[in-house]
Amino acid sequence: MAVGLSEPENLLPVAGVELAAISAGIKANQQDDLVLLKLEQGSCCAAVFTRNAFCAAPVIIAREHLKLASPRALLINSGNANAGTGEQGLEDARQSCALVAEVIGCEPQEVLPFSTGVIGENLPMQKLQSGIARLPGKLGADNWLLAARGIMTTDTLAKAVSSTVTVDATEVTITGIAKGAGMIRPDMATMLAFISTDATVEPDWLQQCLHAAVKISFNCITVDGDTSTNDACILTATGASGSRMLAGECDDSKQFVQVLTDVCTRLAQAIVRDGEGASKFVTIIVDSAADEAEARRVAYTIAHSPLVKTALFASDPNWGRILAAVGRAALDDLDIDTIRIFLDDVCIVSNGGRDAAYQEDMGQQVMSQDEITIRVELNRGEQQATVWTSDLSYDYVKINAEYRT
Amino acid sequence: MAVGLSEPENLLPVAGVELAAISAGIKANQQDDLVLLKLEQGSCCAAVFTRNAFCAAPVIIAREHLKLASPRALLINSGNANAGTGEQGLEDARQSCALVAEVIGCEPQEVLPFSTGVIGENLPMQKLQSGIARLPGKLGADNWLLAARGIMTTDTLAKAVSSTVTVDATEVTITGIAKGAGMIRPDMATMLAFISTDATVEPDWLQQCLHAAVKISFNCITVDGDTSTNDACILTATGASGSRMLAGECDDSKQFVQVLTDVCTRLAQAIVRDGEGASKFVTIIVDSAADEAEARRVAYTIAHSPLVKTALFASDPNWGRILAAVGRAALDDLDIDTIRIFLDDVCIVSNGGRDAAYQEDMGQQVMSQDEITIRVELNRGEQQATVWTSDLSYDYVKINAEYRT
Repeated sequence: MAVGLSEPENLLPVAGVELAAISAGIKANQQDDLVLLKLEQGSCCAAVFTRNAFCAAPVIIAREHLKLASPRALLINSGNANAGTGEQGLEDARQSCALVAEVIGCEPQEVLPFSTGVIGENLPMQKLQSGIARLPGKLGADNWLLAARGIMTTDTLAKAVSSTVTVDATEVTITGIAKGAGMIRPDMATMLAFISTDATVEPDWLQQCLHAAVKISFNCITVDGDTSTNDACILTATGASGSRMLAGECDDSKQFVQVLTDVCTRLAQAIVRDGEGASKFVTIIVDSAADEAEARRVAYTIAHSPLVKTALFASDPNWGRILAAVGRAALDDLDIDTIRIFLDDVCIVSNGGRDAAYQEDMGQQVMSQDEITIRVELNRGEQQATVWTSDLSYDYVKINAEYRT
Repeated sequence: MAVGLSEPENLLPVAGVELAAISAGIKANQQDDLVLLKLEQGSCCAAVFTRNAFCAAPVIIAREHLKLASPRALLINSGNANAGTGEQGLEDARQSCALVAEVIGCEPQEVLPFSTGVIGENLPMQKLQSGIARLPGKLGADNWLLAARGIMTTDTLAKAVSSTVTVDATEVTITGIAKGAGMIRPDMATMLAFISTDATVEPDWLQQCLHAAVKISFNCITVDGDTSTNDACILTATGASGSRMLAGECDDSKQFVQVLTDVCTRLAQAIVRDGEGASKFVTIIVDSAADEAEARRVAYTIAHSPLVKTALFASDPNWGRILAAVGRAALDDLDIDTIRIFLDDVCIVSNGGRDAAYQEDMGQQVMSQDEITIRVELNRGEQQATVWTSDLSYDYVKINAEYRT
């Protein structure tokens, strides 16, 4: 029951990128579960990974390979996270890269491995081996939607976005896919995003562009506060558009980062819209904070409160729960009387309690919508933060309680 | 469906303490909702309050009065939290104290007010006024169970505990009551505990004893991670046993604190056992930590993880979720390979993954019980922490989604 999300449309190929997706039999349901993203020689790559100390074997190997070479291919399997698998898991991830290198003709360290699915089980290497052999014959530039579907686990909809931007009179394309329906899928380990562009971008600058975009997109979403063992976001730039090289601050770079951020934001929001059991898409804005850190802390405290989340599920304009969450966000010298809280444009809290002009039916009207904005004015400074989240429903409990049964 | 909790039994009166409970009509259901605890002259009092910046009017007034005088009476109403009520709320709390002072013959600042219930509505002062007038006629030393029931909101069972300890050949009694079923009851604002002893204790030392006991009892429980606007724990000592005065470290003090801690722990655990929608009572022990702070951080990260809590509800020995929670607790230089995790005595995780000797049915057997211990060995030092929590069930969502409907 994804909120305001439909099948991706109008996906644009990215010059220099070919994709293939097949069913290798890793998932039980015969759906595609093995994806190859092949990059033209000379492409460069930026990456950010999970900060969870318990990170999966493919994350460790991908980090290693990125230090050694610029990638020619990304191999992604769904249905098995290759996490909590010890030495065997590392060996399997390395072996997968070697198999891909053999069939496409490159070095093993030029392949990055990614896995998503059940934790604690070894990769079925025989299935991978025969699957990988079939991938090269399926490569095509128009397979972005197939790839988006091939990396899904319990996502209910594929997530993919395209956009274009002009660099010095050359139009370049940015297309990305993502998967994930909870910040962690414990058995299913979880968020992956792969974004490609045919722009020409200097490698260090590409990494900076990715950091700038991720900071205000993927790093601003939460479904349940749990972070994954397998999270990765990869940005590749093929340069195949022949555009002028972007290598630092300039108007073109600014535009490029803006469009990249927009692509990342739409993918990140798609994950929340398809969040486990989600019936609401909620934007939490905390503004006039003393610094960005406190704005984020307040926004996340609201976003993670089970009581706020169940009130959202119930369409209950329960201002006491929101105010209490602000109150426990541990801000120094917080004067609760200066805070104002809004549901969309309706002021629900001022002067430490219910706003004098507020009537319950005004809040009820806002809360009955599928998409709601909670805005907190701290009135302590100039900084702000935005976080996107979903509600806590019976279905969230059902999905996570019954996952392995 | 409280877990392993039954009606309190064998409650002992505390010399110097009388209690009364009546229905003043604040709750809609005709149950008792107004409680008076009257203390003999010369009693002293220690208190700890919520750290939520959004604290209720009675908390503000109780703190004020404690600075001015030693209390002679505590007035507690359930059904209305007097929180988020601005100036009128402060005025109502002061007025309640004045009314009590009048009927029992003391100064208003010798009365402490406490409220628990719906947030954001003013106290029904007419009902309070006529109720308070009826309280003195109902006072009795044996009314601890009535008082425990009178402070309940959506608790399913009353929570009360008695114990005794010998101070220098004099037997002294400690009896306490508590209420609360979520760390916050947003509309219902939430945990209250009142403990009395007839021991003679020097006031500053009494406060230290309370801090020591609360630190490893009430401060170690969590149902949903939300803290309340009205939390308070009050310890009063009447001295009516005629025992030697406790005023600092000594063997008798040590024993007194030990028994006080035991009383607080049993009350705190009763709150978790009666937690919103609880079907499991879970003890989380993190040991061999570098310091206590990191042990607590890991324990709370596990206790608050919606994914661990839904796995507990499902009786699913999902070690990946527990390990992933440890991994995101942000410990410096955490080596995931040195960690061991146990369900009761069953080792489920070692060397960064599923323990070699572990079989699913061993974990399943532990998880099928009502009471479960999750123990994490960090192997980084000598410190430890214990936290008690409950699971995340359909009923948790139901209770909190439907509370105001």
